[in-house]
Amino acid sequence: MNTNKKYIDQLSIDCVVFGYTHNQLKVLVPKLDFEGDFWALPGGFILQEEGIDKAAQRILEDRTGIKDIFLEQYGVFGEVPRNNLDLLNTLRATNEDKFSALKLKDYTFEWLSQRFISIGYYTLVDINKVVPKLTDIDQSIDWCDIKNLPNMILDHRKQVGKALDAMCLNLDSKLLGFNVLSEKFTMKELQHLYETVYDKSFRRSNFQKKMLDLDILDRQEKKFTGAANKAPYLYSFKQKTN
Amino acid sequence: MNTNKKYIDQLSIDCVVFGYTHNQLKVLVPKLDFEGDFWALPGGFILQEEGIDKAAQRILEDRTGIKDIFLEQYGVFGEVPRNNLDLLNTLRATNEDKFSALKLKDYTFEWLSQRFISIGYYTLVDINKVVPKLTDIDQSIDWCDIKNLPNMILDHRKQVGKALDAMCLNLDSKLLGFNVLSEKFTMKELQHLYETVYDKSFRRSNFQKKMLDLDILDRQEKKFTGAANKAPYLYSFKQKTN
Repeated sequence: MNTNKKYIDQLSIDCVVFGYTHNQLKVLVPKLDFEGDFWALPGGFILQEEGIDKAAQRILEDRTGIKDIFLEQYGVFGEVPRNNLDLLNTLRATNEDKFSALKLKDYTFEWLSQRFISIGYYTLVDINKVVPKLTDIDQSIDWCDIKNLPNMILDHRKQVGKALDAMCLNLDSKLLGFNVLSEKFTMKELQHLYETVYDKSFRRSNFQKKMLDLDILDRQEKKFTGAANKAPYLYSFKQKTN
Repeated sequence: MNTNKKYIDQLSIDCVVFGYTHNQLKVLVPKLDFEGDFWALPGGFILQEEGIDKAAQRILEDRTGIKDIFLEQYGVFGEVPRNNLDLLNTLRATNEDKFSALKLKDYTFEWLSQRFISIGYYTLVDINKVVPKLTDIDQSIDWCDIKNLPNMILDHRKQVGKALDAMCLNLDSKLLGFNVLSEKFTMKELQHLYETVYDKSFRRSNFQKKMLDLDILDRQEKKFTGAANKAPYLYSFKQKTN
């Protein structure tokens, strides 16, 4: 048991970090530092004195080096059975030395092998603005294409799917917070982002009308391209005022 | 401590049951069976062998008699500090006899006074279709108007607000599940429901266009009123096919 009660029992947090760059949607997937293929979402536990949103930020920073990102809490994974016992037994069998020197400092095998309920958070970042760091619990950390994810432990693959569904719902209301485009962007750049996240094409005129109707954009000066008549307008997100 | 570990430590579930009837939105609020005004959402704890959605159903049935309702999990309340210690001390001071005979059978004072993180569920029901029952932990159970809620313990009032926000988001995608209207209904009845939930008026023509554009309604035969030319169309929700 976790006798000192540093962390809340049986409750974990998992983070899905979506990364966007030119027409590609990726997910940040660390690989655990054990022999074998153990890919997992960045996750961890909640300190007794820590709010869950803060815990999510700390866990993400500890596991990826990413700081101060707007994380959205989107769901809880709490069905039964849901525990790490099989995984822990496999790790112990195949990685005896590493396992006994365990990097899982604060917790025992028994504590970790309990049923866990996990609170899911996700975020969307510009891949070019974020440099994930390799920390000592992981062997590698990679941006994996959403359509080509590795096998992941537990229900982590399912979590990615649910997080994507949550992100697609009312995406327009969250883009200002996610800060994934440049401060000023063209309608085409915005359309590419939507097409990539939703994985489908939109007609240019429909898309533009829909976006303008949402009243979330401010139109800026034209982008200077040298050919004035073809220069596209630039837009920025309206700052929320409440 | 909860030595037998029947329930998961430090994790609770709270349910917001919205009730709708003719232009009124209410919330089901039980009053705890202690001297003093202790109003609370129906809530409880998660058994070790029980999925969280099932736990929410069981808790709601135990506390209100309401069975097999479509409950939507919408958020987690996990900031710090968040515990029942002040409440429990007040109850103990003012209700000594009742408190020592405690109806909180499975748990001790120490267990209950820990920090709790709560998973929030809500539902929307037709008040006329649901008859809440008074169970032995509560003194009374009432449908309270959303604009005139009593003082509630902990953050339960805030939970009602957050649940309402969640319900308003994409309400059209959930109405089939909530089953709050008759199987067939007029556009006017649907509009009244929206106006009550969102607490604002919509223009009739705009509302009708918006609803038809959503492609969630099937138009049925006209309602027979005796005056054929004025009979309104009836609608039903399209069954989801996936």
